[in-house]
Amino acid sequence: MADFTLMRTLHQPAETKMVLLVMDGVGGLSVTPGGPTELEAANTPNLDRLAAEGTLGQTIPVRPGITPGSGPGHLALFGYDPVTYDVGRGVIEASGVGMKVGKGDVAARGNFCTVDSSGKIVDRRAGRISSKDARPLVERLDAIELPGVQIDVRVLREYRFGVVMRGDGLAPHIHDTDPLETGLPPLEAVASDPDSQPTADLVNAWVKEARKTLADETRANALTLRGFSTNPHLPQFDEIYGLNAACVAVYPMYKGVAHLVGMEVHPFDGESPDDEFAAAAAIWSAHDFFFIHIKKTDSLGEDGAFDKKAEMIEKVDAALPDLLDLSPDVLAVTGDHSTPARMKYHSWHPVPVLLWAPATARSDGQTHFGETACSQGGLGTFQAPDLMPLMMAHANRLTKYGA
Amino acid sequence: MADFTLMRTLHQPAETKMVLLVMDGVGGLSVTPGGPTELEAANTPNLDRLAAEGTLGQTIPVRPGITPGSGPGHLALFGYDPVTYDVGRGVIEASGVGMKVGKGDVAARGNFCTVDSSGKIVDRRAGRISSKDARPLVERLDAIELPGVQIDVRVLREYRFGVVMRGDGLAPHIHDTDPLETGLPPLEAVASDPDSQPTADLVNAWVKEARKTLADETRANALTLRGFSTNPHLPQFDEIYGLNAACVAVYPMYKGVAHLVGMEVHPFDGESPDDEFAAAAAIWSAHDFFFIHIKKTDSLGEDGAFDKKAEMIEKVDAALPDLLDLSPDVLAVTGDHSTPARMKYHSWHPVPVLLWAPATARSDGQTHFGETACSQGGLGTFQAPDLMPLMMAHANRLTKYGA
Repeated sequence: MADFTLMRTLHQPAETKMVLLVMDGVGGLSVTPGGPTELEAANTPNLDRLAAEGTLGQTIPVRPGITPGSGPGHLALFGYDPVTYDVGRGVIEASGVGMKVGKGDVAARGNFCTVDSSGKIVDRRAGRISSKDARPLVERLDAIELPGVQIDVRVLREYRFGVVMRGDGLAPHIHDTDPLETGLPPLEAVASDPDSQPTADLVNAWVKEARKTLADETRANALTLRGFSTNPHLPQFDEIYGLNAACVAVYPMYKGVAHLVGMEVHPFDGESPDDEFAAAAAIWSAHDFFFIHIKKTDSLGEDGAFDKKAEMIEKVDAALPDLLDLSPDVLAVTGDHSTPARMKYHSWHPVPVLLWAPATARSDGQTHFGETACSQGGLGTFQAPDLMPLMMAHANRLTKYGA
Repeated sequence: MADFTLMRTLHQPAETKMVLLVMDGVGGLSVTPGGPTELEAANTPNLDRLAAEGTLGQTIPVRPGITPGSGPGHLALFGYDPVTYDVGRGVIEASGVGMKVGKGDVAARGNFCTVDSSGKIVDRRAGRISSKDARPLVERLDAIELPGVQIDVRVLREYRFGVVMRGDGLAPHIHDTDPLETGLPPLEAVASDPDSQPTADLVNAWVKEARKTLADETRANALTLRGFSTNPHLPQFDEIYGLNAACVAVYPMYKGVAHLVGMEVHPFDGESPDDEFAAAAAIWSAHDFFFIHIKKTDSLGEDGAFDKKAEMIEKVDAALPDLLDLSPDVLAVTGDHSTPARMKYHSWHPVPVLLWAPATARSDGQTHFGETACSQGGLGTFQAPDLMPLMMAHANRLTKYGA
């Protein structure tokens, strides 16, 4: 398990560059017993070469059998035990679009939805309206004024938006208002402790105003809120590891987690693996740690698209030479969790990891980056928060412990 | 390590059925270096098919290098860290024959023994007298009356009996009275703390009466006591996992542990694997979790009977189709510890585990259920209390952790 005391005490400066390449939800399942997983079915000559030169293993993101959400999955990869550091979705996503969540502020993630004339939800995602269509609606929400509190609203992506409440005496222990199925109305905000009741009252007052201003919309005529949370004030990457870390990611969720641990989040154009590696190249000299996030492996897993997920992995593999041209000293390729296409959902299965470091990695006889090879790899099966210390070590960034 | 908070928070209802099939002491050792273990020597076509379809691994029941007793071994399989939950043998065995051990009661396990005219033990098991022969003796012990305490006695099996003391101010910190070798007299009951001294005095007074009533017996003319303990009030299976669990076991020890964690213990006729699987079939619709305990793999290991232990494993394998006909969604096959015939004793060696779940298990390229294959399996080497969360996950009984 991660021990920041050791990292804080032992980290040392070095000229080395480290890359953590996360293919979201990369772990999979075979469709037939003994058949290949998505990763094993993919033709990945570059990753296989790195596998042969480096060391394989598999990680447990949270605990054995526990299926991680994206927040816990990424916190674990960054070295934070996700059970100790329980960070809410609201603050992660709001941070991901640059909203400041200060001390005492409460953040939430909002979804536009469509309700019928009786107020029951008929579409939980408001027809997946575009970011462009959402923007004027969000501006109207942002303009709502309530006494005693300032409520900022910003588009996240498509039908999703971030909400940050600022004021005195706010508290975040409020249940989600999404009933999680159609045919039911959005729920009232309900506090789970007395300290949060005034905040829940404010939320309900705000939602009432919001519903008025959305009333004439055909698709986004209502909303739900989830992940009420405050800034967890996580220990920061530079202080723990002595790293000047950068984030290259497309989606707010991942930018948000990276921001909360103290990474610099870099904007860039495009969203293909090539675009992301180009973005890393553009800032290569300014940082020593690069978190690069590939989203679509997860989305395609959730769609149940086995072949397309394998093809997405092949696209990452094909783009990899551009990343390798930058000559990273340590490259870890892994996922934040498994998303088997067969299950169409995140899962608890261990996550394959490839640790490549030409100067320091011990090769383990494995020659293909896949689940079975990783389960027999030289790193063994380990808790995901231990990956950062392993990367640090392979980058010559940790001194000896004890005499 | 087990974290009941996660289980309590994340468990969700499902229609799935889970089976934990424990072959007691199944782990073994080869007789010659590189040779097969008992499990590897056994011809197990059914288990091997499940191994090919499912995932293998090996468990550490307590901590690396620690040899577990049966109590800790089973508590670990049920998800309880056996170092945190230290449950005495007395309460386990008494519970296993339906004796109520209430708050403040003290339980112990008794053994009849044979002493010579000088009071020294010549047979620590009283010639292994039968349960039938023990019954009238136990009735005489049960009839002994002492002021200030009620002492109930019941036959466990053969020369073993359970003792439960009820009264005010009892405390369980009393050393075992079995000297563990012949040629020595049974020990006095000695308290290990001042609070337990009155109870030790009561025990000694009771043993004095018991010796009087047994004085004319030729075999069971004395007794020893061990495992003084109180009810640990363990967290219950339904509350932790949301499971309605059943126990199918022959011996009181295992029924006792199952009862203490809240399983319903089902009586049935016979004691072969076929009988036990038939017993599970008879209650299949009434429960969602089935703990089935096979004792003889352990007994034969303790006898040093390598071939017979392998044959016993083959009998379980041959009976397995009856269990599979019930269509469990998750089947874990493992042991509570290793009992290598070569050592004739429990051991600390990791325990092979096979996790089969047709809808959700990740196959790992292993095709035989044996120690070497398990050490290279996809589950890796893990703490035994993590098996329950893994079974729960594979049964779709855990929701996602975090957003």
